[in-house]
Amino acid sequence: SKTLRVAVIPGDGIGTEVMPWGVKCLQAAAKVFNISIEFEHFDFASCEYYQKHGDMMPANWKEQLISFDAIYFGAVGMPSLVPDDVSLWGSLLKFRREFDQYVNLRPCRLMPGVKCPLAGKKPGDIDFWIVRENTEGEYSSVGGKMFEGTDREVVIQETVMTRTGVDRILRYAFELAKSRPRKRLTSATKSNGISITMPYWDGRVSEMHKNYPEINLDKYHIDILTAHFVGRPEIFDVIVGSNLFGDILSDLGPACTGTIAIAPSANINPEGKFPSLFEPVHGSAPDIVGKNLANPIGMIWAGQMLLQHFGYTEAADALLKAIERILERSEASILTPDMGGTGTTQALGEAIEREI
Amino acid sequence: SKTLRVAVIPGDGIGTEVMPWGVKCLQAAAKVFNISIEFEHFDFASCEYYQKHGDMMPANWKEQLISFDAIYFGAVGMPSLVPDDVSLWGSLLKFRREFDQYVNLRPCRLMPGVKCPLAGKKPGDIDFWIVRENTEGEYSSVGGKMFEGTDREVVIQETVMTRTGVDRILRYAFELAKSRPRKRLTSATKSNGISITMPYWDGRVSEMHKNYPEINLDKYHIDILTAHFVGRPEIFDVIVGSNLFGDILSDLGPACTGTIAIAPSANINPEGKFPSLFEPVHGSAPDIVGKNLANPIGMIWAGQMLLQHFGYTEAADALLKAIERILERSEASILTPDMGGTGTTQALGEAIEREI
Ligand SMILES: CC(C)[C@H](C(=O)O)[C@@H](O)C(=O)O
Ligand SMILES: CC(C)[C@H](C(=O)O)[C@@H](O)C(=O)O
Repeated sequence: SKTLRVAVIPGDGIGTEVMPWGVKCLQAAAKVFNISIEFEHFDFASCEYYQKHGDMMPANWKEQLISFDAIYFGAVGMPSLVPDDVSLWGSLLKFRREFDQYVNLRPCRLMPGVKCPLAGKKPGDIDFWIVRENTEGEYSSVGGKMFEGTDREVVIQETVMTRTGVDRILRYAFELAKSRPRKRLTSATKSNGISITMPYWDGRVSEMHKNYPEINLDKYHIDILTAHFVGRPEIFDVIVGSNLFGDILSDLGPACTGTIAIAPSANINPEGKFPSLFEPVHGSAPDIVGKNLANPIGMIWAGQMLLQHFGYTEAADALLKAIERILERSEASILTPDMGGTGTTQALGEAIEREI
Repeated sequence: SKTLRVAVIPGDGIGTEVMPWGVKCLQAAAKVFNISIEFEHFDFASCEYYQKHGDMMPANWKEQLISFDAIYFGAVGMPSLVPDDVSLWGSLLKFRREFDQYVNLRPCRLMPGVKCPLAGKKPGDIDFWIVRENTEGEYSSVGGKMFEGTDREVVIQETVMTRTGVDRILRYAFELAKSRPRKRLTSATKSNGISITMPYWDGRVSEMHKNYPEINLDKYHIDILTAHFVGRPEIFDVIVGSNLFGDILSDLGPACTGTIAIAPSANINPEGKFPSLFEPVHGSAPDIVGKNLANPIGMIWAGQMLLQHFGYTEAADALLKAIERILERSEASILTPDMGGTGTTQALGEAIEREI
């Protein structure tokens, strides 16, 4: 069968520390399940690269990457060296936009052995997917300043939604909900306050629902939706939101399941016209860099989503099981400090690699 | 001393059910502490009014209300009768904007006797204020649609920040932080993704910080900030955010302390040029209307903020103490169902009124 070509971009900070374990675990799974994966490493899309070259990526980054099936991505950001908006808009957000990775898919699941910050919840109680629009909406580059430096200073940023952009993410979310036993979809809105784009979003949701009469649909304003994440997370199955709302919910969700340091994120171009990108949800965490303390599970779990995406279901299941078994065993000497253990990136990475 | 003139606007749904208890408790406190308060009731700013008159308020609403010291406001919204954006932009959001109530102040406090959804937290652990910008930002009325009804359809909404608007809310937040023992201020941002308005916000925060060197300032992106609400809410003291971020955080915060049904909100025009508005955080809750089940505490606590705002500190303290004692006593026959009790709006309202 064909070879999966993966571009490896560790980025900054702990991205570079967890990436080796991600690659090793993918290699281990590939070996067991006889999958052919080829990795190629790239040093751009990092603040170090920026310091040397004055840009986050070379001019021909697109040519260099476009032929890959996937990008395996660590984390970007070193605010002490490069402002976050410069480093992110010059890398991750560029990939999402220019490779049209319009689906950002993130699981939110209470895993065995993980301490849940919510009272009285057990594994299985929380298990939903967040589908985030990943190319437009509130993350626009349109707007500007006027009367700069004076008391009249006014700053404008435009949220842009297109019918194409909204409909395709809604279709993806309805399809995902359809594939799940509960067939439930929740749409995040704020149409009572954000009076133009959000009523539009709501309207497209209602329109799309007509094609999926079997789906139980509900709509919550984003403020009360975040409250329900804390109060009754078990009601959710699939949640769809705009770029910003999806961003917020997909940090809050993992926080509610105690998995913020281990959650993965898939940035998908469903048509396969461009490479999709797989990354941990956590960032570059400059504060713990160089200490061998970073939790590699987010990176490894992102690799699991990569396998799943390309249809290697058996291998993906095995990798997820390996993560779950290590978590369940809860050995303090293996778990990293963020999970209450005394282990290192290496100890935890090796344990999962062996378990596969 | 002078008479406090309060305009009473119950609005819709449970707003009309909890308002009588808010007024009774204010009257009780006024009696004990010898404060002169005059109430005048208004039936506009409700969806029923809209159905009769085709508008949420009469043309001369501003004239009718401007001479009051405060507006005591229930809740607006009946989406089955009037779309939320119409009813809210025609009432609450109009008050905030046209009476220049640019500070939205909301306490977030773990109260005695209230079941906290977060594991292992006790009263005193969580106690912070959210300061929300209340007149501009993401809640703008500027934008529109193009190529309507076609595949090229594009919808734009502009976030508008002014130096005046940003600086005055930051100044209020820094001053509030200064008055608190911990002197800590957290600013909500998203400057890595929202690349024009949010870096501007950050810049103004840094600028304002120069006037308040004694304040411990930190900045969190809104996504990870919501995660910290769940993971380590005890670190927060005062939080300042834009209109949308403040909206989200001030629902999530009370959810984390189990007080979403009882939290209050003050919409303040600090200069006293226009009336300030005091309301519960909860909405009109059409699903439980007419059942005598609504929790009146949010309304009563909003009255407490009203007293506090006008300098009646003793009366305000007594009212808060009364609420706390009733909560602490945790009598099932008095607490409403949202708090796990079997009581009614009336039973709980009366208990607090008596306690004052
Ligand atoms: C009802 C709605 C428009 C309002 C808001 O978003 O401001 C509410 O959620 C609030 O927080 O007061
Ligand atoms: C780093 C940042 C720009 C990014 C985002 O906001 O999309 C991150 O928070 C994420 O969720 O992937």
